[in-house]
Amino acid sequence: MTAHVFDQAIELTASGDGQFSGATSPAYANMVGPFGGITAATVLNAVLQHPALLGEPLSLTVNFCAALADGAFAVSAQPVRTNRSTQHWVVAVTQTGASGEDETVVTASVVTAARRSTWSVDDEPMPVVPSPAEVPPYAAPSPVEWIRRYAMRPVEGQIPHTWDGRTSDSLTRLWMRDAVPRALDLCGLAALADVFFPRIWLRRATRVPAGTVSMTVYFHAGAAQLAEVGHGWVLGQARAQAFRNGFFDQAALLWSETGHLLCSSHQVVYYKE
Amino acid sequence: MTAHVFDQAIELTASGDGQFSGATSPAYANMVGPFGGITAATVLNAVLQHPALLGEPLSLTVNFCAALADGAFAVSAQPVRTNRSTQHWVVAVTQTGASGEDETVVTASVVTAARRSTWSVDDEPMPVVPSPAEVPPYAAPSPVEWIRRYAMRPVEGQIPHTWDGRTSDSLTRLWMRDAVPRALDLCGLAALADVFFPRIWLRRATRVPAGTVSMTVYFHAGAAQLAEVGHGWVLGQARAQAFRNGFFDQAALLWSETGHLLCSSHQVVYYKE
Repeated sequence: MTAHVFDQAIELTASGDGQFSGATSPAYANMVGPFGGITAATVLNAVLQHPALLGEPLSLTVNFCAALADGAFAVSAQPVRTNRSTQHWVVAVTQTGASGEDETVVTASVVTAARRSTWSVDDEPMPVVPSPAEVPPYAAPSPVEWIRRYAMRPVEGQIPHTWDGRTSDSLTRLWMRDAVPRALDLCGLAALADVFFPRIWLRRATRVPAGTVSMTVYFHAGAAQLAEVGHGWVLGQARAQAFRNGFFDQAALLWSETGHLLCSSHQVVYYKE
Repeated sequence: MTAHVFDQAIELTASGDGQFSGATSPAYANMVGPFGGITAATVLNAVLQHPALLGEPLSLTVNFCAALADGAFAVSAQPVRTNRSTQHWVVAVTQTGASGEDETVVTASVVTAARRSTWSVDDEPMPVVPSPAEVPPYAAPSPVEWIRRYAMRPVEGQIPHTWDGRTSDSLTRLWMRDAVPRALDLCGLAALADVFFPRIWLRRATRVPAGTVSMTVYFHAGAAQLAEVGHGWVLGQARAQAFRNGFFDQAALLWSETGHLLCSSHQVVYYKE
């Protein structure tokens, strides 16, 4: 059986001491370099494959220092502090630059934690939206390859049909999952948190260059809860809070179809003009 | 003239090559170790003092690996990638442990950026609240020292008066500033983003042990805009989105009194029970 295209894309070969090698996947190509979500998932995958790992991901921050060049990259994942219930990881992705020297293309940090059964409650109920079966798929022709890896059913705030510069709010809600079914897991969730197109396109109905600079995911669900989602849909919601001098922030929430908040996520995004 | 107590607390001595030494300040002591906000400000201060710095802070992520012990610490701040408009920093705080070896107590990443004048808009208008002059100061006796460093005027969602286990929502809004006036700057703003008491205390009216594991600040304001705030009040708003298996997340927004969104901030917080 051939591995799922997502698993092929995040595949890493361990060479010991927290060093891994991987390669970009044409299937997840973005305008320049790979889809940020697949890079975030790859970073997380390095930690999940590390033999010293304790617990499950709680927090993931990925800083995109430069677009990855097509081809090979190296990942270093180091546990710098292990406590009774949390473990702190420092991760870097490097590539050999034109000069022949290693260049840092991603820095990241991951916190993993032993989750205990405690008093728990969701304070962000899933918005009332039509079910995935009631929403037509997103069918616009896509200029980039990675979009075709996802099934998307936009509920509101989809990419503008006409780039007429009319301002609107920046809220998007959509059902999403892998186009070729794949059981949801932690790496899959990290990637989904970056699926939203740039808020500035929606807010201004103007297609300006934009790219994520830093993103963070706080995992509320563990592997067991994600397994319950299986091949099901995930409802994603994203909105911006401020656009200022070339950068905007995005606050995102992702729920299972049964209404459990799976993660919250934030990012700060560069935009031109 | 003696330096402000905040500036004393975040003071660092550079020894070259991105290495700095500092010491915890009793004035910002928390239950165990220092107030997380002062540590976040110290991390940022190392980057701001680095001779290679380009641009202004855009993003700051601080992972609290362990409580800092009272006394000396070392900060390492390294620019790992410098682009045309962004610069990526990796920061670590270490202390000499009981065994005599250096132990990592904080990992952090900072992105600085050259901000350009672009189309800009705030999508999170400041909530309509009474002015600071109309709100009585928070006068409850505080068990920890750092709280006395801030003037706080809670508008809604203050620390419960009675710990009766009654659940409520987790929203707090308060006016805040340094108790001894200090002109707002980037380090001061980073610290203010962590002033909110643990959301679990408000949500459950139950005082359980809690501590920030990771926090991120996205700066919408630069030094010039913060200078306009001067000694003025900042309106802070914080709420949790989910409490799950020992950890909750917090989404926070901070506005100037004139209604400009200064930063958005997020954190994930450990809680017991």
